[in-house]
Amino acid sequence: MDREINNKALLTDLYELTMATCYYKYQMFAPATFSLFIREYPPHRGYFVSAGLEDVLCFLESFHFNQKDLDYLDNLGIFPKDFLHYLSTLRFTGDVFAIPEGRIFFKDEPILEITAPIIEAQLVEPFVINVINFQTTIATKASRCVYAARGRKLVDFSLRRTQGVDAGLKVARASYIVGFGGTSNVLAGKLYNIPVFGTMAHSFITSFKKEIDAFRAFSKIFPQNTVLLIDTYDTIIGAHKAAIIGKELLYQGKKLKGVRLDSGDMAPLSKEVRQVFKEAGLNNVMIFASGGFDEYKIAKVLEQGAEIDAFGVGTKMGVSADAPYTDIAYKLVEYDGRPVLKLSMGKKTLVGQKQVFRLKEKNNLQKDIIALRTEKLDGEPLLTPVMKEGKRLFHSEPLTKIRDRFQTEFAALDESYKRLENPAIYLVELGPALQKLQKQVVFKVREKELGES
Amino acid sequence: MDREINNKALLTDLYELTMATCYYKYQMFAPATFSLFIREYPPHRGYFVSAGLEDVLCFLESFHFNQKDLDYLDNLGIFPKDFLHYLSTLRFTGDVFAIPEGRIFFKDEPILEITAPIIEAQLVEPFVINVINFQTTIATKASRCVYAARGRKLVDFSLRRTQGVDAGLKVARASYIVGFGGTSNVLAGKLYNIPVFGTMAHSFITSFKKEIDAFRAFSKIFPQNTVLLIDTYDTIIGAHKAAIIGKELLYQGKKLKGVRLDSGDMAPLSKEVRQVFKEAGLNNVMIFASGGFDEYKIAKVLEQGAEIDAFGVGTKMGVSADAPYTDIAYKLVEYDGRPVLKLSMGKKTLVGQKQVFRLKEKNNLQKDIIALRTEKLDGEPLLTPVMKEGKRLFHSEPLTKIRDRFQTEFAALDESYKRLENPAIYLVELGPALQKLQKQVVFKVREKELGES
Repeated sequence: MDREINNKALLTDLYELTMATCYYKYQMFAPATFSLFIREYPPHRGYFVSAGLEDVLCFLESFHFNQKDLDYLDNLGIFPKDFLHYLSTLRFTGDVFAIPEGRIFFKDEPILEITAPIIEAQLVEPFVINVINFQTTIATKASRCVYAARGRKLVDFSLRRTQGVDAGLKVARASYIVGFGGTSNVLAGKLYNIPVFGTMAHSFITSFKKEIDAFRAFSKIFPQNTVLLIDTYDTIIGAHKAAIIGKELLYQGKKLKGVRLDSGDMAPLSKEVRQVFKEAGLNNVMIFASGGFDEYKIAKVLEQGAEIDAFGVGTKMGVSADAPYTDIAYKLVEYDGRPVLKLSMGKKTLVGQKQVFRLKEKNNLQKDIIALRTEKLDGEPLLTPVMKEGKRLFHSEPLTKIRDRFQTEFAALDESYKRLENPAIYLVELGPALQKLQKQVVFKVREKELGES
Repeated sequence: MDREINNKALLTDLYELTMATCYYKYQMFAPATFSLFIREYPPHRGYFVSAGLEDVLCFLESFHFNQKDLDYLDNLGIFPKDFLHYLSTLRFTGDVFAIPEGRIFFKDEPILEITAPIIEAQLVEPFVINVINFQTTIATKASRCVYAARGRKLVDFSLRRTQGVDAGLKVARASYIVGFGGTSNVLAGKLYNIPVFGTMAHSFITSFKKEIDAFRAFSKIFPQNTVLLIDTYDTIIGAHKAAIIGKELLYQGKKLKGVRLDSGDMAPLSKEVRQVFKEAGLNNVMIFASGGFDEYKIAKVLEQGAEIDAFGVGTKMGVSADAPYTDIAYKLVEYDGRPVLKLSMGKKTLVGQKQVFRLKEKNNLQKDIIALRTEKLDGEPLLTPVMKEGKRLFHSEPLTKIRDRFQTEFAALDESYKRLENPAIYLVELGPALQKLQKQVVFKVREKELGES
C-alpha cells in the first residue's frame, strides 16, 4: 500500500479527471494560469510564512500516471480509452512562479502561480493546495511560538499527535525553518538534517522500582545528555531527587544537563525548582517545560516569570489547534490569454498573471502591492520563477538558508503584525493596471452571464 | 525521500531510543504493558469511534530498522555500538488487545493494550498514538456529520485541505467507515476500494467563454453523470441555465443528475433552485451542496428547511476543525508483573492489564465497566486479542464490515450522547478488583516516592 502512495498523480479529486476528459475531448490544450492565495486571515493571524514549495516542485517534476493508476481509472468505467491513453504519457510541462519558502506574505497575495496546458494545471490542484496550505499553516503557527518564546529554545514534540505521520515530518520541517531548535522526530532528523532532541518518558521512571533509580540509571548511560523528567510523582520532590543526581554527577566531574516539567502550574513550579537547584549549588541545570504549550501558554507563563529555559512544543503547534486550516484557493485567472474570474458570493478572485511588490521603509516592511505581472512598479518582486517547462530552476534549498531568509524578513516586520491576539492588518494594495483589468472583466462577465448592461 | 518513509521504525521520538538504550544496558527485557486511552472528551464530544487499528497492526508486523536507519543513528554519536547491533535484529514480538475499528468507546477506556518486552513496546509509542489519535478523531467527527445529515448522502471533499496527503487518505477511509457514501479522493478510492464522486470546478466554468457552454460541454461527455456547478456567477441564474441543459438532456432521453451549490445562503438558495427545476418539469435533479459544511452547518441548514439531497463535506471534517486532536495517552501500566502508574497532576492512569465490559439494556448501550483483564464481569468484552507474539490474528477487515459494525452499534447508542452540543456523559465505572488494585498501588507509590505513610 505504501508503495502506491509514492506515485502521487492519483492524489487528486475525481472531478479533476472528468474535467480533464472534457478539455481533452474539446481539444482545450491552451495555457491556463491558476493562482494560489489565501482569502482571509485565520483568527489572530496577521501574516503567513511561505512553506511547502519544495514538495510541490518535486511533485510536479515527477508527475505521471503509471499503468496501475490507469487500470484503476479504466475500471471505474467512466473514462474514454483515448483519454486514458493520453494520460499515460502526460507530464507536467508548465511554468511556476512562487514566493520562496521562509518569506512572509499576506492575504490575497498569490503564493504561487502555475501556467500550463489546462489539463496539467487542473490535475495537480489538490496536491498543490494541500501541501502549501498545511506547511504554511504550521510554519505560521510555529513562528508565533518562536515570537512568544523571546529567544528561549523550542523543540518540536508533536509527532504523536499530528494528523498522520506525513504531517509529523512536515511539522518538524516547517517549525525548524521558522527557528525551532530541532525536533524529537528521528525520521525528520534523518530526512531533513534537523537536530534531534529528547529527554525521557514517565514510562521510563515507572519501569524502575524507584524514581531516583531511574534518574541514576539514565545519567550513567548518558552522562553528557541527561534531562530528568521530574513530575511523575511530585515535581518538587522529583527536583530534590534530581539535585542529588546532579551532585553525584558533579562529584564525577560531569554535569546534569537539565530537568523537564510536564504538568502542573508551570510558573510557580519552575521557580521553586530553580530554587531547589540553587540551594544545591547547581546553577546551570536547564529547566525544560512541556505539556500543552503553544504561543499563548508560552507567553502567559513567561509573563508570570516562569524560570523556563526551553520548551517542548507539541500537539497544539503540530495541528495548529486554534487555526487548523486556511481559506486557501487555487483559481483559474487566465485561459488562452483571456483573463477570467468567478463572482461567487464572498469568494472573488483577482484576474490575470500577477506579481507582488514589497515596499520597505528603512529596513522595515511598509506595504505590498498586488499587480499584474507585466506592471513595472517600485519594490521587490516576491514571486520568482521556480520552474520552466516542467523543470525546476534551482536545487533543493538547505533548510538553514530558508531559516535565515525567514529570520531576516521576520525581523523587518513590525511588532504590531506579530501580536498574538488582534494583530494589525498589513497594508496590501492593488496595482493600477490590475485594478483596471479587474473592473473591466467583472463588468464584462456580469454583462455576459447575468444579462446586465 | 518517499521511499524512506515506508520504513517507519524511525518514526519515533529520540527519547524512545535513549530509554531503549538504558533498558538494553540494564538488561530490562521483561514484558511491559502499555495502555492507550483518551483522558477527556474534546468539546461537544460524548463518544469516540475506534479507527486506525489496521495501520497499527501493519506497522507492528513489519517493524524493523534497516541499515540506513542504523547508520543515521550511529552518526548521531550518542548510541553505543552494541545497542545499535541489537536494534538491527529487533522485531515486534508482543501481544495486542484492541477495540475493533468501527466500535464506539468512551473516555478512560483502553482502546488498545500492548504487552511486549519493554524496548519494543516503548519504541512503537509515537506511531501507535499518532495513528489511533488521528483516525479516531476523524471517524468521530465524520460520524457527527452523518448523524446531523439524517439520512442524506455525504461525500468526503477534504483532500485539498487535510493536514498532509497521508491525512487525506485516512480521512477518506475514516469517514467511509462511519457512513459517508464515498470520497472525491481518487487514490483513496483505489487503495481502500471506496466509491469516488465528483462534480466540476469553477475553473471548468470559467475556462469556457460562457457558463452554459461549459454546462453543455460536460453533459455531452458525461450524460449519465453530470452535476453542474451553478454558483460561479449567480446561483439562481445558473439554475435556470442548468434547467435548459436538463431539458435538452431529457429531449435526448437522458437525465441531468444534479446541480451543486458552493456559496451563499444555502437554505433559501436551495429552495429557490428546487423551484426553478420544478417549474421546468425536472423533478429528479439532485441538489448537492458544498462549502464549509460540518455537522453544525448541516444541522443548521436542514433546520432551516434547506432542499439539499447530498453534501460535500470538506475541510472542517477533514481536520476536525473544532477538535483537531484528542488528549490521548499511551501509558505504562505494568512492568515485569508489577502494576505501575504515575501521579502527575490531572494525568492519572489506571494500573494493570485491562478489559472493558459493555452492558446493554434491551438492545441499547447502558454502561461500560473498565476492569482488570482477569476480572469476570457481566457484559460484552470490548478488547479482543488482535496480535499474538508479533503476528496478527486476523486479516485486514473489508471496510464494509467495519461500516456495518459501526452502524449497528451507533444505532444502539441513545440520542442524548449524540447531541451535537453538550452531549450527555455515558456511564463508565471501574470494576471492583481494578478499584482495589488502583488504591493499593497509589498508596504504595505515595509511600515510596513521596515519603508518606
